[in-house]
Amino acid sequence: MLQRPIRVVMYGLGQIGTDIARLILKQPHLQLVGGIERDPLKVGGDLGELLGSSQPLGARVRASAGDVLRQTRPDVVVIATASFLRDVFPQIRDCLAVGARVVSTCEELVYPPASHPEIAQDLEEEAQAAGVAVLGIGSNPGFVMDMLPILLTAPSIDIQRVRVERVVDASTRRVTLQQRIGAGLDPLAFRDWLHQRTTPHVGLVHSLRMIADAFGWQLDRIDEHTEPIIAESWLRTPYVTAAPGQVAGIHQSARGFVERREVLNLDWRTAIGLTNTYDAIRIEGTPPIDMLVRGGVHGDLATAALVVRAIPHLMQLRPGLRTVLDLPVLHYTQAQSPLSRERGQSAGPLRPTNITSS
Amino acid sequence: MLQRPIRVVMYGLGQIGTDIARLILKQPHLQLVGGIERDPLKVGGDLGELLGSSQPLGARVRASAGDVLRQTRPDVVVIATASFLRDVFPQIRDCLAVGARVVSTCEELVYPPASHPEIAQDLEEEAQAAGVAVLGIGSNPGFVMDMLPILLTAPSIDIQRVRVERVVDASTRRVTLQQRIGAGLDPLAFRDWLHQRTTPHVGLVHSLRMIADAFGWQLDRIDEHTEPIIAESWLRTPYVTAAPGQVAGIHQSARGFVERREVLNLDWRTAIGLTNTYDAIRIEGTPPIDMLVRGGVHGDLATAALVVRAIPHLMQLRPGLRTVLDLPVLHYTQAQSPLSRERGQSAGPLRPTNITSS
Repeated sequence: MLQRPIRVVMYGLGQIGTDIARLILKQPHLQLVGGIERDPLKVGGDLGELLGSSQPLGARVRASAGDVLRQTRPDVVVIATASFLRDVFPQIRDCLAVGARVVSTCEELVYPPASHPEIAQDLEEEAQAAGVAVLGIGSNPGFVMDMLPILLTAPSIDIQRVRVERVVDASTRRVTLQQRIGAGLDPLAFRDWLHQRTTPHVGLVHSLRMIADAFGWQLDRIDEHTEPIIAESWLRTPYVTAAPGQVAGIHQSARGFVERREVLNLDWRTAIGLTNTYDAIRIEGTPPIDMLVRGGVHGDLATAALVVRAIPHLMQLRPGLRTVLDLPVLHYTQAQSPLSRERGQSAGPLRPTNITSS
Repeated sequence: MLQRPIRVVMYGLGQIGTDIARLILKQPHLQLVGGIERDPLKVGGDLGELLGSSQPLGARVRASAGDVLRQTRPDVVVIATASFLRDVFPQIRDCLAVGARVVSTCEELVYPPASHPEIAQDLEEEAQAAGVAVLGIGSNPGFVMDMLPILLTAPSIDIQRVRVERVVDASTRRVTLQQRIGAGLDPLAFRDWLHQRTTPHVGLVHSLRMIADAFGWQLDRIDEHTEPIIAESWLRTPYVTAAPGQVAGIHQSARGFVERREVLNLDWRTAIGLTNTYDAIRIEGTPPIDMLVRGGVHGDLATAALVVRAIPHLMQLRPGLRTVLDLPVLHYTQAQSPLSRERGQSAGPLRPTNITSS
């Protein structure tokens, strides 16, 4: 059952966008047909060459979204431009105007009702009117601190409390992340710096609200808290240095309460020099679940993989503003596997495998 | 958006069937309309009374599946009768004959192509002809050793090998499980006993094949291995005793190979007296995943919860033989939450929550 490849436009070719585009290039069921990027250094060239491909793709990178979208008429647009919905909402509208489905790494798009209920309503209506689905996904938010703990409640008949902890060593991550967590600042400068900008990690409250709403829990209060993690010894990465007493990173938490009882606790720590890294999910319920991912789920590659795996499902998703909870089980598929093995096909008989028993 | 409850018939009222039925009773969006059970002690009475409910349900337990199905015309039938497809296939046909969707704890139904490609094909065709979905689900197979490891590959861009280990302490489990693992037998008697019956844990190869097929891996060999776990000291449960040197339980494994390289390894150990219990999933890939559920996912309650959570999705699943990979993300939902919060509804704005930041 061969189908034509899904035609994809990349909107945003920064580091994450480039990672996603390179992964798309390896998928026979996906075809990159255009790129949108405002960086003048990247505009005008061939998208394949920009991605370091050995041969040109025949798809151009251009600054005008409208031009690219009208000329390519893609099935799906991947938006990897910004974390905030106010920046991405107009870009989504551009895509809806040409009837393209949208999947985006925009953190707030993972669960818009948490921060922008009005935009969520507008998106729902406009996507429905355009007859296509709009989805936000990433490793966090979108997987580690929401989809995964939510799925892990499936075997429990009762839940009292969910706690998710993510500890990331920024030393091994991209420079922009190290800058975003204030590494190397003095604590006083950190406070000022924090006031001048928004939350360094966007999406904790979005994950929290997605969990609460999935469970049908009406939270009466959400507490958000941000504080610096202070270096106890000299910490050095290729990009930043923190002396003892200086800021090594950030500790952020979001807690949800029902009738004054803490029922959700999401805890995110990212700093340079954090050696014991992990993701932990603890579900107090019947039966309880106590899950640990040693070393944690590496963020940047994970986001690219999740976006690319979501793309085929956008073709089937009900029109409107969707969430990762609407997706069937995402998973790795060998790139060279035939199209007929894509999800949504029948679990029909395959060729037999020799089974030996002892 | 109020909908009428989904009308459910329970087919099989043994221990698991009873657990499932009791959980269904607590769900306002599900309505038990009949029970099928061949045990004469359970036939004829009111289903609610059989489940220990304080008031009768007005639904009878009867031995004739045809009678119950024709008179109740359920939306969904939950089959919890047997582990093997040859026993359950005729029961599924009874349900398809009245156009009812089927969800079952039958281990082989979780991935029929692994053991019965012909029945898988028949089921696919007959379910399509009836215009309904047929699904097998449980904690294992169906969740811990297949759906969960499969989902955990979603953030990885490349996978070389997946290993899943499940270690269960049978001491804390139902008596039938303790008997099924041969606890208390002498090693020689165990060998005979093993030859007289089929694999004690059904489904390891089904999980293995589901994983391989999801990845698009063509296995050229599957090795299955079963051996006793021998007691090193006296082990006693309320039901069985094993002396040192006697059998405490079973160690089963299934390994899948591609070009002589082991790419999948599923390892299941269940014995009385196993104190260090866990589920572990290790994904060798980019990035790698190393997951541990301390204490493991408790099996019986988990199966009941998973079945009950799958029921509403059967109404939307594409007709045919489906697998757990076709389901959106299953999760706990507070039983008293309104119907409009069921999955498949829009992620529209809810009432605001106070957010405090510090």
